[in-house]
Amino acid sequence: MQQAHLEQGDFFMGNFQIRTDLALEARESVSEADSELRGVRVEEYYKEEEDIQVTKVFIDTKNAAKIMGKPIGTYVTIEAPALVEPDEDYHKEISDCLAEELLNMIPDAEKEQSVLVVGLGNRDVTADALGPRVVDNLFITRHVVRAYGKAAYNCTKMNLVSSIEPGVMAKTGMETAEIVQGVVEETKPDVLIVIDALAARSTKRLNRTIQITNTGIQPGSGVGNHRNALTEETLGIPVIAIGVPTVVDAATIVGDALEKLLGDDKEFDTFKYMGQHRTAFSELNNMYMTGKDIDAVIKRVSFTVSEGINIAMERSME
Amino acid sequence: MQQAHLEQGDFFMGNFQIRTDLALEARESVSEADSELRGVRVEEYYKEEEDIQVTKVFIDTKNAAKIMGKPIGTYVTIEAPALVEPDEDYHKEISDCLAEELLNMIPDAEKEQSVLVVGLGNRDVTADALGPRVVDNLFITRHVVRAYGKAAYNCTKMNLVSSIEPGVMAKTGMETAEIVQGVVEETKPDVLIVIDALAARSTKRLNRTIQITNTGIQPGSGVGNHRNALTEETLGIPVIAIGVPTVVDAATIVGDALEKLLGDDKEFDTFKYMGQHRTAFSELNNMYMTGKDIDAVIKRVSFTVSEGINIAMERSME
Amino acid sequence: MQQAHLEQGDFFMGNFQIRTDLALEARESVSEADSELRGVRVEEYYKEEEDIQVTKVFIDTKNAAKIMGKPIGTYVTIEAPALVEPDEDYHKEISDCLAEELLNMIPDAEKEQSVLVVGLGNRDVTADALGPRVVDNLFITRHVVRAYGKAAYNCTKMNLVSSIEPGVMAKTGMETAEIVQGVVEETKPDVLIVIDALAARSTKRLNRTIQITNTGIQPGSGVGNHRNALTEETLGIPVIAIGVPTVVDAATIVGDALEKLLGDDKEFDTFKYMGQHRTAFSELNNMYMTGKDIDAVIKRVSFTVSEGINIAMERSME
Amino acid sequence: MQQAHLEQGDFFMGNFQIRTDLALEARESVSEADSELRGVRVEEYYKEEEDIQVTKVFIDTKNAAKIMGKPIGTYVTIEAPALVEPDEDYHKEISDCLAEELLNMIPDAEKEQSVLVVGLGNRDVTADALGPRVVDNLFITRHVVRAYGKAAYNCTKMNLVSSIEPGVMAKTGMETAEIVQGVVEETKPDVLIVIDALAARSTKRLNRTIQITNTGIQPGSGVGNHRNALTEETLGIPVIAIGVPTVVDAATIVGDALEKLLGDDKEFDTFKYMGQHRTAFSELNNMYMTGKDIDAVIKRVSFTVSEGINIAMERSME
Repeated sequence: MQQAHLEQGDFFMGNFQIRTDLALEARESVSEADSELRGVRVEEYYKEEEDIQVTKVFIDTKNAAKIMGKPIGTYVTIEAPALVEPDEDYHKEISDCLAEELLNMIPDAEKEQSVLVVGLGNRDVTADALGPRVVDNLFITRHVVRAYGKAAYNCTKMNLVSSIEPGVMAKTGMETAEIVQGVVEETKPDVLIVIDALAARSTKRLNRTIQITNTGIQPGSGVGNHRNALTEETLGIPVIAIGVPTVVDAATIVGDALEKLLGDDKEFDTFKYMGQHRTAFSELNNMYMTGKDIDAVIKRVSFTVSEGINIAMERSME
Repeated sequence: MQQAHLEQGDFFMGNFQIRTDLALEARESVSEADSELRGVRVEEYYKEEEDIQVTKVFIDTKNAAKIMGKPIGTYVTIEAPALVEPDEDYHKEISDCLAEELLNMIPDAEKEQSVLVVGLGNRDVTADALGPRVVDNLFITRHVVRAYGKAAYNCTKMNLVSSIEPGVMAKTGMETAEIVQGVVEETKPDVLIVIDALAARSTKRLNRTIQITNTGIQPGSGVGNHRNALTEETLGIPVIAIGVPTVVDAATIVGDALEKLLGDDKEFDTFKYMGQHRTAFSELNNMYMTGKDIDAVIKRVSFTVSEGINIAMERSME
Repeated sequence: MQQAHLEQGDFFMGNFQIRTDLALEARESVSEADSELRGVRVEEYYKEEEDIQVTKVFIDTKNAAKIMGKPIGTYVTIEAPALVEPDEDYHKEISDCLAEELLNMIPDAEKEQSVLVVGLGNRDVTADALGPRVVDNLFITRHVVRAYGKAAYNCTKMNLVSSIEPGVMAKTGMETAEIVQGVVEETKPDVLIVIDALAARSTKRLNRTIQITNTGIQPGSGVGNHRNALTEETLGIPVIAIGVPTVVDAATIVGDALEKLLGDDKEFDTFKYMGQHRTAFSELNNMYMTGKDIDAVIKRVSFTVSEGINIAMERSME
Repeated sequence: MQQAHLEQGDFFMGNFQIRTDLALEARESVSEADSELRGVRVEEYYKEEEDIQVTKVFIDTKNAAKIMGKPIGTYVTIEAPALVEPDEDYHKEISDCLAEELLNMIPDAEKEQSVLVVGLGNRDVTADALGPRVVDNLFITRHVVRAYGKAAYNCTKMNLVSSIEPGVMAKTGMETAEIVQGVVEETKPDVLIVIDALAARSTKRLNRTIQITNTGIQPGSGVGNHRNALTEETLGIPVIAIGVPTVVDAATIVGDALEKLLGDDKEFDTFKYMGQHRTAFSELNNMYMTGKDIDAVIKRVSFTVSEGINIAMERSME
């Protein structure tokens, strides 16, 4: 996940501000007065049969981006409670929905393209293994088409799909962005898809929500550390990030519990308090909270996501 | 870890009582008035050069066991801050200390014995992989001695070491205790050593503390679920449990944060409050908190523990 | 695979006799004169649409068992060339066929049963990982039914499925049979299903053949080492073994090449020659030969096999 | 290993020529008449106490390169029979020897350098996992020095070590050389060290031999496919390859067995015969042969190799 890749403290030295990688949650946490804020539009639809809720948040202006703490761009959230449950077909209905929204976001998706999928995260930490595991199940075609032509797949139109698992900085000694930049320059894909585990604000969204955004990956929400960004600006090609929240920050959960406890006391600002007393709460830095069945969940969710990408790559050629 | 193996709710449906697998912490959390309670003795020593603190808690009476929430028996805690740090020799000084205290606890350790080491936990969940990973690095001898005699190792005295990784119930459909019981009856070891990841109360003990106890494993601290116990009583042979805390319960951490916040208000009992409002805090059930570098830490700590066992098995034959 | 679990030399010190775990191949290698031998019956059918060939070899007499080098019993071989190729549905047609033949072999398959599936082999050696990987994908129900009743699955009839991955002797210090025997005695399943990687005689059967037999596992084809057997005789319940050949023995492949080279010279008995000159060929001991894409193949084949078992368990309840 | 990464047939469509990645074996297989061939020099020394034989083959001329089937350059082979055996210190004496010879080969090794270590191969195929596993155990420093300066390590001189595991083409859709080239251009290391599993001609060198060469990696010994090369010529920086033979080609082993069988018949050229009858032997393509305890061996050998690199990186700063 984005934090887990970072050096210690990069993220959490702050004042325990509310932390979420989901635009949907950022939207919710903006106070009511701001809720009709200019520059943010929301669209949504619900698929009843599949029990899938799709919410699209469009952040259109710099000012809105600042208030939301997220860059300008489109954020599509697929909420599918079924995602955490076992299913014989690996939730093909969710993969289909993901494929559709992914195609909506890829520019000129109907044209033949070269697509590089980057699986961020650490394979050896269960909650951070989403990226590597999604990449494991992709249908990779670039090398075959380059060697044998599209005839190898009996078709005249074919996306070239490649993938890389760059690993985490503690193991490589390199910024993820350095590795991806190098590979992009060398292999010149048309589009980048980046997969990453996310942090949610609420446990109720864990492992059952997929976010797709065309803003790429901006660790720390643009707070410094631009070397790490994987964005259209830094890489020169569209960058679409797909993420699933698998953890909740410890500080967030403690803050939420405090809020509940002191809920009636409107004067009291919990997160400000925690920021002011950050030494007392310092043990929460670099800790995260995750569910006890995370291994089975990650296995299933990563399969559903990789199937979604596989379907999108194939469907765009129809 | 013990909770992670259990069905959802087994443990946490309680009233958010303070939860720790460390007798040392249970001792600390008993209020001052009780602190000289009869039936609990404490011994300790400090190895200055190695910065290793060893504390032995002896629970001698039923009453003390009840107050402490831990069964009658001996609990040795090795606190070694260095354990979380990389080291060229994998902290041989800690392995040596563990070996010594382990030999103190094995009855008739100087005699040739057949020792079965059980690696509890889930290899696929990083924070719960301690048991399986310790077992990976053991020096296994039973099959060789049985096939070729002790001559195979050029010695006249030799422990027979075997090991098993029973897996978690969600994968096997069987209680761990059923599997271990069956293997014990069939292979008749003299002693059982059980390795498991633990939950600590405080993040400051995470991954740097080793607990050795002759009380075996009693999920839920004996609160029901006796089928799951791995103890001398259920198995008929001495059972020594070695554990390292790798997680902190979410509920505990929230409770601690509340305590800090409301520290001056002696009237307010945080954990009682949480218990009373358990619906509000229900999202904390089945969540745990762990450090972000857990993969590297588990790799190193499990090596140090397995080396400790290897050294003990060899040294007892000198 | 059966050989890989064994101590060095258990198997290969012989005189380089033809080595195959497939009854089908044993049948083929019996010379023509013997081919109408009494006590061996063969039945077969071909599913044209799915390109699946099913051959059933029945060994009915002790004499036939001796000539074939296989115990008395039924051996069903499913040959499905598609098995080595990627498929969106993981070759459901092959899983279905496996399910059907498995149900034919389980006594009283239509009754509710407790079924223990044993995944033999070494997860860390790709070609030997079939058993552990099949077990990874099973639908395990025993613990749920025992805890919550069949109502948990909204049904009135339900098999209790459990599984174990006993590991290899070099890691456990115990015979596989000791572990399985213990678990069987403790959990009392009605039927045992054992999964194992096999050795084939011919590379053309690698990874595309599934053998199902009611003779269980008899390492070394009953040549000594009875402690290791997993059979109805040793365990007291029906034992059905499912295997897929993933390797070819080095000695066999060399022998075959020599045969080709010297094919016209009917006087020359290659394998006898190799047996007589076994020192010269000793480097072939403890070596095996496998394909270069073994990782992808094992991943797919193990999924197809586990789906076959899942389907059988569910279908028998209809 | 180099073959395993390649498309099917890249390598083996030949006429079953003798295949070895070891210059030492190429040297041996050159017939006696050529053995004093100009342009090839051999130096050797033996460390009696450690039982380590070091042989250096210098190929100095184009002609010699052609006869040997290996590019111009230096090839150091460390033969250490102990490497296959367990050892408490992970064979530190072999790591030391590797460190020394590696430093001899790195230009200006005494100067501070930025070193990128590339772990080639497939983590999921045991015999091909050497590269990824060596990289797992390296002491990575680049990111720390860049973020905090050398002061982080309390020293004034420090190599910057980084690493990457590029994965295999079937998983990435990219040539290894594309990925490495991109990362080299982006991160500008001074030296590249490439780790790979090798194929040996003889089983007696399996897993107990380490080859270090300054010629980099040239799949197919320069026979076409230059895109794949990782050499000073293609990358612009010195490329040192470290390899350990973990497999023997099936075709080679069959050829050797035939030679033994027909040893007296000097007229008969086995490998030429196999080439001529390549259809008959085609099943040997894409097969390799490996030992049955390959998992334990790879685990140990990769640790010894990574320790050798760690020692070299540290020692060069003394």
